[in-house]
Amino acid sequence: MTVRIGVIGTGAIGRDHARRINQVLGGARIVALSDVNRASAEAVRDDLAPDAVLFATGEELIASPDVDAVLVTSWGATHEQYVLAAIAAGKPCFCEKPLATTAEGARRIVDAEVAEGRRLVQVGFMRRYDAGYVALKQAVDGRIGAPILVHAAHRNPTVPEQYVTPMAIHDTMIHEIDVLRWLLDDDYVSARVIFPRAAARSHAKLRDPQIVILETAKGTVIDVEIFVNCHYGYDIQCEVVGEDGIARLPEPMAVQMRLGAKLQNEILTDWKDRFIASYDVELQDFINAAARGTAAGPSSWDGYVAAITSDACVAAQEKAGEAVAIDLPPRPALYS
Amino acid sequence: MTVRIGVIGTGAIGRDHARRINQVLGGARIVALSDVNRASAEAVRDDLAPDAVLFATGEELIASPDVDAVLVTSWGATHEQYVLAAIAAGKPCFCEKPLATTAEGARRIVDAEVAEGRRLVQVGFMRRYDAGYVALKQAVDGRIGAPILVHAAHRNPTVPEQYVTPMAIHDTMIHEIDVLRWLLDDDYVSARVIFPRAAARSHAKLRDPQIVILETAKGTVIDVEIFVNCHYGYDIQCEVVGEDGIARLPEPMAVQMRLGAKLQNEILTDWKDRFIASYDVELQDFINAAARGTAAGPSSWDGYVAAITSDACVAAQEKAGEAVAIDLPPRPALYS
Amino acid sequence: MTVRIGVIGTGAIGRDHARRINQVLGGARIVALSDVNRASAEAVRDDLAPDAVLFATGEELIASPDVDAVLVTSWGATHEQYVLAAIAAGKPCFCEKPLATTAEGARRIVDAEVAEGRRLVQVGFMRRYDAGYVALKQAVDGRIGAPILVHAAHRNPTVPEQYVTPMAIHDTMIHEIDVLRWLLDDDYVSARVIFPRAAARSHAKLRDPQIVILETAKGTVIDVEIFVNCHYGYDIQCEVVGEDGIARLPEPMAVQMRLGAKLQNEILTDWKDRFIASYDVELQDFINAAARGTAAGPSSWDGYVAAITSDACVAAQEKAGEAVAIDLPPRPALYS
Amino acid sequence: MTVRIGVIGTGAIGRDHARRINQVLGGARIVALSDVNRASAEAVRDDLAPDAVLFATGEELIASPDVDAVLVTSWGATHEQYVLAAIAAGKPCFCEKPLATTAEGARRIVDAEVAEGRRLVQVGFMRRYDAGYVALKQAVDGRIGAPILVHAAHRNPTVPEQYVTPMAIHDTMIHEIDVLRWLLDDDYVSARVIFPRAAARSHAKLRDPQIVILETAKGTVIDVEIFVNCHYGYDIQCEVVGEDGIARLPEPMAVQMRLGAKLQNEILTDWKDRFIASYDVELQDFINAAARGTAAGPSSWDGYVAAITSDACVAAQEKAGEAVAIDLPPRPALYS
Repeated sequence: MTVRIGVIGTGAIGRDHARRINQVLGGARIVALSDVNRASAEAVRDDLAPDAVLFATGEELIASPDVDAVLVTSWGATHEQYVLAAIAAGKPCFCEKPLATTAEGARRIVDAEVAEGRRLVQVGFMRRYDAGYVALKQAVDGRIGAPILVHAAHRNPTVPEQYVTPMAIHDTMIHEIDVLRWLLDDDYVSARVIFPRAAARSHAKLRDPQIVILETAKGTVIDVEIFVNCHYGYDIQCEVVGEDGIARLPEPMAVQMRLGAKLQNEILTDWKDRFIASYDVELQDFINAAARGTAAGPSSWDGYVAAITSDACVAAQEKAGEAVAIDLPPRPALYS
Repeated sequence: MTVRIGVIGTGAIGRDHARRINQVLGGARIVALSDVNRASAEAVRDDLAPDAVLFATGEELIASPDVDAVLVTSWGATHEQYVLAAIAAGKPCFCEKPLATTAEGARRIVDAEVAEGRRLVQVGFMRRYDAGYVALKQAVDGRIGAPILVHAAHRNPTVPEQYVTPMAIHDTMIHEIDVLRWLLDDDYVSARVIFPRAAARSHAKLRDPQIVILETAKGTVIDVEIFVNCHYGYDIQCEVVGEDGIARLPEPMAVQMRLGAKLQNEILTDWKDRFIASYDVELQDFINAAARGTAAGPSSWDGYVAAITSDACVAAQEKAGEAVAIDLPPRPALYS
Repeated sequence: MTVRIGVIGTGAIGRDHARRINQVLGGARIVALSDVNRASAEAVRDDLAPDAVLFATGEELIASPDVDAVLVTSWGATHEQYVLAAIAAGKPCFCEKPLATTAEGARRIVDAEVAEGRRLVQVGFMRRYDAGYVALKQAVDGRIGAPILVHAAHRNPTVPEQYVTPMAIHDTMIHEIDVLRWLLDDDYVSARVIFPRAAARSHAKLRDPQIVILETAKGTVIDVEIFVNCHYGYDIQCEVVGEDGIARLPEPMAVQMRLGAKLQNEILTDWKDRFIASYDVELQDFINAAARGTAAGPSSWDGYVAAITSDACVAAQEKAGEAVAIDLPPRPALYS
Repeated sequence: MTVRIGVIGTGAIGRDHARRINQVLGGARIVALSDVNRASAEAVRDDLAPDAVLFATGEELIASPDVDAVLVTSWGATHEQYVLAAIAAGKPCFCEKPLATTAEGARRIVDAEVAEGRRLVQVGFMRRYDAGYVALKQAVDGRIGAPILVHAAHRNPTVPEQYVTPMAIHDTMIHEIDVLRWLLDDDYVSARVIFPRAAARSHAKLRDPQIVILETAKGTVIDVEIFVNCHYGYDIQCEVVGEDGIARLPEPMAVQMRLGAKLQNEILTDWKDRFIASYDVELQDFINAAARGTAAGPSSWDGYVAAITSDACVAAQEKAGEAVAIDLPPRPALYS
């Protein structure tokens, strides 16, 4: 069976997912497109999805009997409404980050999915599908003993002026929040933020870098350096210290060169290149689950927990140095 | 358009390619299967390709108007006849190694394709599609100056008793023969083999390890260590020395661990894992070209040159220490 | 001129330094020995320093006109008295850690040296002489821009039962306290300790591992993982994040092996091997300065600051999570 | 006892060894100097060895009853006569490379030493004292099984115009010739040289790079890349392939940096820095043995074998591609 997919939101990421589904992955076809900017949807149809029908609204697309599953890649503020509509229609739905713009919105999606009684939503936390993190998880689960500490770093070469301090959590750290919870199979109980002096390349509304310290229910302590003006490259580091040893996230594949008195590998500078292969795996997982009428991978619950944790981290930024508690409601059985 | 593919030979590799096409890749479907062991073809149909029709012979499969393109994954001795039939039918054809069991057989395929006037054959030299070699080629082409030397190694942990000295060329070194020629954009002019004492884990009919030295038309010298009883792992190394610097094939991605007084990465032990991702890229390239009615990637000419070079290397094994000339006929314009 | 050195305390470290001076280094000779256990001093004389005269007390040794400079390698509780006596005698004095058992004691030494008006004391912080740290300091000073963050780790495979939580500061972290201050050319203003769950290999009186977070006067934040039951090896890590890039302490030299499906280097397990070469450099520096009648390298002031900082870190252990201020008195001009 | 050393030849290396002995190492003093350029000897006396007496000739220096041991660091053509004189005087003698300018000359030294009946000569093959090679030898002897293959490289960034093809053996490869023989505890039986096209940075009288292939008595095959115009740095590589695994010479210690989109270590560019620490260890070994009236480390025999092997390699350059036999006379018992 070929899963017939409708895409709501045909901007850069929506277009790229459409290309993936029609040209790279197996088992699905783009049959429907919708965007507030109709010309954008037309262009995607013309370039990548000649069979796709255009719909005036996301809701109409979701309602179409020719659409089996939905990709929500529209503007973040509209995610909640489309995901809720997809759940109501009983259709598997892949939603890019954020699941909703507030924790309350994410909670409404969780409640709707729980009421529906089956997984229908996959959130676009692609790092769980990265081969490096998957290999790291195998090492954490089987080689180094129970984890006690995690040292992580998320570094960007630069950010634009409009990037302000809370965005270091909502836009940047959000990936560590999800992937480390998955890596450790654990939940967070507190967040604390420590600021060194600001980097010279930072600006008035951005305290950068920062160290976010998370404590988990099992007692693991995680320190994450977030440094979005690090200048030298886009660099993701993760080291897990266990009872018996330490495992480190692999560096991206690179040709080692001996050149100009340097033994050197290139470091990526564009975040889009870092996890590019994981988008394919992520969407194939969505397609495969959608073919069975359900969803797999990062769930609504994961999106909701990420939202709660992010809010706590932003609160912790405001109370620099102090621990802010993270109180999670009970996890519904659907997500156990 | 979906390319309708028929598979001739449904053993391990045929089955795996069928899975790839129907479950992983986009743009093609398995519509036909054939195997001398009909039960094998039936099993692939039942497990992976429910829409496929079974044919009694490869020739009938090739002749079917419902088949757009052909995969030849049968027993090596039958490759030539099926590839020739596919060319005669004007259908794109992917052929696993070897293209033919003799250089003469490969030459017949080249001649048939040249007569047909367009590329129809892709040979299964998958390393050209490996992300590591692709990155290495970028470095060789643009970063380290013109190549002068190549140091390579191809190591297997162990081989069975029936693996004899010439197989070190035909089954093992064959991959370096093709990929280094592609990497350097060059042709070989001589081969020489130097044998150290045999490894203790070798056996009477196998001189192992060995150093094969190839000289190219542009004057580059390549040394390849072939060591198929190296014991410690399956390990492929390649280092290119250029006028300005050196580039090295990336090691496979691995989690670095600190464990038991060792800073350690795992080394693969099974050759099937080493280039596994490249099979997907290779077949997608075949599908994409087949959709345009042609073939891309490693050509019949490449298969023919590999056969001539292999024969010279085996002759060089017999004349240990002496250089054996490699005389290539002129390259037809079709492959320029 | 050959510097005539007397050694007070001929236990393991005193004996080893005597060997260094008489057999490895240039410019000095052991001429005097003293130990509360006379047999120990006799053995060192017989094995390593045949020309040495034995003294009943350290004070007598210091007073001897044949002694130009003194090594204090006795039991820690006696360091202060011998160092004060050496200063009073105007003789250069090398003192192993700790300079004194309390910050007040160290202060008395500082005051005495300031009163004397010249540097006479070198404290045995040998890491400043390690080739790796020296190279790291060059990178920090000239390559990566002004430092903003430091990530460090000090890991031991195991510790005995009598090793309790404050010893993680006084015996272990003390090295990071001194070397990072030197590396950054900065002073500490606060300490904070964060404890994850205790490792299974820890014991009731030891909370292990722990993260010590130091903030400096220039606003750099340092996180040091101390993990003395890490099991896998003795491992010292240090990474400095600057405005322009990151520099990392070199790993100890090791042969890379491909063995048993692992790409592996050995990690040391005995702390004594890690900085062994730096002891030679450290003592040569002492000899060279002593020949000029003075002292170089880590000063009394550095020992005093380390003591104050250690006390603050222990206080921070007791107030887990809270920042404890580190108030340093003004630095005397002698140490500027 | 302090070994009283006389230095014959006070150019760059003689001066540096004098500094070592008087300022860095223990157990010896420079008491005598001689140079054809008396001003050079005076300058070394004034700067580094105030106690040294100047002698008009090396022979007079050797004859002096105040000289216990001799360093021969004069012009290469004079080495033989001074070494023979030292042997005749029964004094330990350290001789920089070459031991003699011909194999016959080296043989005369061997014969004289054998006649004397004890080791008196150490040849300045310092790599045997390098910590990296020592660690590699431990791995070769105990970890990777019996050696079968060695891959080595000796790369210089550039050489002057007067450096011609045979110098690649006599001045460059000579180090590999000695150290690999020591590493493998083996002797050479043949040499072969293979030339790729010359590098663009080479010149008319220098074929560069080249691959020298040595075969040993135990059947190990060694390939050494010599590339003295490699441009990027001074780089020494050595990898030993054994029955069970592979061991690799450690890279020189370097700070890993993340800077300018590169993960980078510095590569040395000046050969003098590469083995600088090994000179100290080498000379200390000489001093320690001289104190016992004998010599240790690389022997006259090693120097003689290196000369014979070098001659064979140069002959092999002239017969590019062909194997040239290396016939060693029986090893005298003195060197077993």
